Amino acid sequence: MTPMTTPTNSLPAHFESVGLDKAYRLLNHGPTVLVSATDQGVTNVMAAAWSMPLDFSPPKVAVVIDKATRTRALVEGSGQFVLNIPAKSLAAQVLGVGTDSAMTMSDKLAHHDIEIFSAPSHTQPLVHGCVGWLQCRVLSEPHNQQQYDLFLGEVTAAWSDPRVFCNGHWEFEKAPDTLRTLHYVAGGQFYAIGDSIKVAD
Amino acid sequence: MTPMTTPTNSLPAHFESVGLDKAYRLLNHGPTVLVSATDQGVTNVMAAAWSMPLDFSPPKVAVVIDKATRTRALVEGSGQFVLNIPAKSLAAQVLGVGTDSAMTMSDKLAHHDIEIFSAPSHTQPLVHGCVGWLQCRVLSEPHNQQQYDLFLGEVTAAWSDPRVFCNGHWEFEKAPDTLRTLHYVAGGQFYAIGDSIKVAD
Repeated sequence: MTPMTTPTNSLPAHFESVGLDKAYRLLNHGPTVLVSATDQGVTNVMAAAWSMPLDFSPPKVAVVIDKATRTRALVEGSGQFVLNIPAKSLAAQVLGVGTDSAMTMSDKLAHHDIEIFSAPSHTQPLVHGCVGWLQCRVLSEPHNQQQYDLFLGEVTAAWSDPRVFCNGHWEFEKAPDTLRTLHYVAGGQFYAIGDSIKVAD
Repeated sequence: MTPMTTPTNSLPAHFESVGLDKAYRLLNHGPTVLVSATDQGVTNVMAAAWSMPLDFSPPKVAVVIDKATRTRALVEGSGQFVLNIPAKSLAAQVLGVGTDSAMTMSDKLAHHDIEIFSAPSHTQPLVHGCVGWLQCRVLSEPHNQQQYDLFLGEVTAAWSDPRVFCNGHWEFEKAPDTLRTLHYVAGGQFYAIGDSIKVAD
């Protein structure tokens, strides 16, 4: 099997580490994510609207990964996955990798212009054009995986685009609109995240 | 133990049944929810940013309910819960019931002006001012509940405010801004859901 894509290792221009204590906040507001994984030289990326934080410390996440996806075998094989948080500018690609399967489209990532990179000192595949990344190791729960397609993971590293997630906070209102997160509904329709609402304590 | 609140049974002015095949879409874009439950005459409501759909048919959901909450005992006792999807106009109350616990504030719901009603022919507690409601029965998974505070549920009925969720679709752009869903970050800060993005198939 040949690699479907090779990390370029050219880091995004805006890329910073996020402390593990703040990593859950990348996911707390319910964005649609891209799940990426690599096993035995094969990398794939799928879209998932069904993910959520599961714990603060150590940070954990939950995500639904269907048995019919190519990515699932890579997650099971490697025991690792990444939740990438795409921005509005990536909407067409998110729909594309969520609709097409590498099972039937062998050049799926190239076809949808998905570019992969790796963080320094890490090997997991991260997706360019995203604004947050959560690298996770699978917490083995065979019953959940088999019965519900439900994968639990512990976050082992996290990063963000600091133009839009800085000091542990999303700051969408200070950044270009194209950096807002995507929230999928159905039928090719997303909503972008909107206005900030601050309730006094 | 006296009831903490009594359903008024005055239905919201805008309240319609949602087909079970479309129920997952209420939750698909990642809104923060209110979890409500009643057991032995006691009703409580808590906020939860950590929930997601788990399956289409029959529709299932996942939600994290901490051991320290009063609501958890009601969910465990009754085997039922409701995920209520609050609108922007309810932001202060969502923060309130997410911060205060009925363990230490016995009149929590009254204190935060939370009004409860029941749907016709149903007994579960629904929260006024929300724009979607998913009534669920607990799928008993003791290991998940104990180890991860993770509850899985099957959706047995669903409703929406048809001004904003109609024919199986959110239509935020056609409704007043106050009906947009809330997406919690941290520290009393939410984002409202924003603009629609339609990607051509």
